[in-house]
Amino acid sequence: MNVAIVGASGAVGQEFIRVLEEQNFPVDQLTLFGSKRSAGRVYKFRGQDHVVKELKHGDDFKDIDIAFTSAGASVSKEFAETITKHGALMIDNSSAFRMDDDVPLVVPEVNGEDAFNTPRRIIANPNCTTIQMVVALKPINDISPIRRVHVATYQAASGAGAAAMDELVAQYGQLQRGEEPTVEKFAYQLAYNVIPHVDVFMDNGYTKEEMKMYNETKKIMHAPGLDVSATCVRVPVMRAHSEAVWVQTEAPVSVEQAREAFASAEGLVVLDSPADKVYPMPLDIADKDPVFVGRLRKDITDPCGLSFWVVGDQIKKGAALNAVQIAQYILEHKR
Amino acid sequence: MNVAIVGASGAVGQEFIRVLEEQNFPVDQLTLFGSKRSAGRVYKFRGQDHVVKELKHGDDFKDIDIAFTSAGASVSKEFAETITKHGALMIDNSSAFRMDDDVPLVVPEVNGEDAFNTPRRIIANPNCTTIQMVVALKPINDISPIRRVHVATYQAASGAGAAAMDELVAQYGQLQRGEEPTVEKFAYQLAYNVIPHVDVFMDNGYTKEEMKMYNETKKIMHAPGLDVSATCVRVPVMRAHSEAVWVQTEAPVSVEQAREAFASAEGLVVLDSPADKVYPMPLDIADKDPVFVGRLRKDITDPCGLSFWVVGDQIKKGAALNAVQIAQYILEHKR
Repeated sequence: MNVAIVGASGAVGQEFIRVLEEQNFPVDQLTLFGSKRSAGRVYKFRGQDHVVKELKHGDDFKDIDIAFTSAGASVSKEFAETITKHGALMIDNSSAFRMDDDVPLVVPEVNGEDAFNTPRRIIANPNCTTIQMVVALKPINDISPIRRVHVATYQAASGAGAAAMDELVAQYGQLQRGEEPTVEKFAYQLAYNVIPHVDVFMDNGYTKEEMKMYNETKKIMHAPGLDVSATCVRVPVMRAHSEAVWVQTEAPVSVEQAREAFASAEGLVVLDSPADKVYPMPLDIADKDPVFVGRLRKDITDPCGLSFWVVGDQIKKGAALNAVQIAQYILEHKR
Repeated sequence: MNVAIVGASGAVGQEFIRVLEEQNFPVDQLTLFGSKRSAGRVYKFRGQDHVVKELKHGDDFKDIDIAFTSAGASVSKEFAETITKHGALMIDNSSAFRMDDDVPLVVPEVNGEDAFNTPRRIIANPNCTTIQMVVALKPINDISPIRRVHVATYQAASGAGAAAMDELVAQYGQLQRGEEPTVEKFAYQLAYNVIPHVDVFMDNGYTKEEMKMYNETKKIMHAPGLDVSATCVRVPVMRAHSEAVWVQTEAPVSVEQAREAFASAEGLVVLDSPADKVYPMPLDIADKDPVFVGRLRKDITDPCGLSFWVVGDQIKKGAALNAVQIAQYILEHKR
């Protein structure tokens, strides 16, 4: 396969390079694209130097089979035609096309089959917070349909990109030296703080990030009646998002049933032995492939309720890895 | 009033000294008590030096009117008789007596009247996470009874004491110098991490901290049918806890009704103008007296649901200030 990465210099772009290597993805040729500013930068893939080319309109995608794009929604919208016009499949990490009816939104463990329905040659990669949550919702939903989800997130700096991660580290140094911390990438100082504000606010009082969890979950799970109320919060963690989740199912699901379903679910690892202080934490889960679940227990307010804690690496399963897994799913299940 | 502080050297003990000054509490004489280890330490109150006396069994509380105790549950249990036997009122910040039927559990804005029902001369100060939540639940519950609460907490290091706060700061320095961070006060490294584990685990999979929110909320609000499912999480913040809350009421409560009720509620400040990036954050709220609420919106999964975000200083309203306010309530409403 001839593979392209668009937005190669970003946090997710860099992760694409690593994931393609780690997953031993069948890459014949890798082409890196970036903005004018990052054009000319050199990155290694399988020991070989690859120079970032400037993303331009033209025929640069003529021989590309799959393009992984992660350069923001506006770039994806502007270049979708350029990327796909010769037949390349665009697997897009931005929010540009996620809710379009003719673009599937795919998490392979949940709705891999949808990846074959691509009239526009575009597949959307869901939002990071949604990806890790639906991997955990799926096995429960298979036992009894989920009606309602409440979720509070603990989102890492990585969700705002590499520069945001640097800013967080810098803030601790600045505070230690008695300097005023630099605040550019987040609305406020993130060091020693939590910020209940990820993405922009909508008219209904929710943020766009929170409404992504509402809308994308319905689409991925083919469950228009499954409602999600999210509170998304940025926390001073480098990478890996955590989520406190409550689900209400149609019929009661026992903790034992849920634990068994989690344990046999694809892409999910159960870390749940509270007596031994075993539960997932972002510091441990950073850079790991699967989604981790723990703190499983009954929702004591609701006989049809369960509560659990989900942690996943935002840049891996929450972005680059899920996109590569979509491509792998297509190759393995080719029809 | 002759006032005693037991556990004077701790984070909450120190805050008691400050709060008594700030609140201009009518102190005629202040006596500080502590462990053998902290006996002899000197702290200033209203410009005067006060030496910490060792807490012992005997008659040291003979002339004390009010004793604020914050030296852990076992000390409170061991010394309750010594403290109260001559008639002193013990306002206890530990969990020792909170669920005892003959000990009221009081948040003045919610159930101040209960402070007069003290057959044992003991009043319990609720857990920090519960205090700030019930201040926000009360005005909603007055409109329509709350049936169900889901709450995810973002708890500061201060909840584990002054040494825990020092450990968190030290960890950032150690990490910056490439050293292994010291981990003593929390189960794991808290810097750049979140830990879904506050207090010990119970058989039902909840932690004791989470079950405090369940049990104490029922008692304070006189609402045995009000159920709370909490996920309590330690975050790398110095002081002030944050909580993502969802409530389900018997009848629908509109956002406008809730906002009005919050705005006129005692002890509560509404900071809720998302378009202007106005919402409460722990970094801003540290050291402030009231409880702050923001991010108010409908729970989009439930016509009878509301969601909001509550932040309060754990050491102030969550501990010392609430205890002093209990004493103030008694003095002001003396019968």
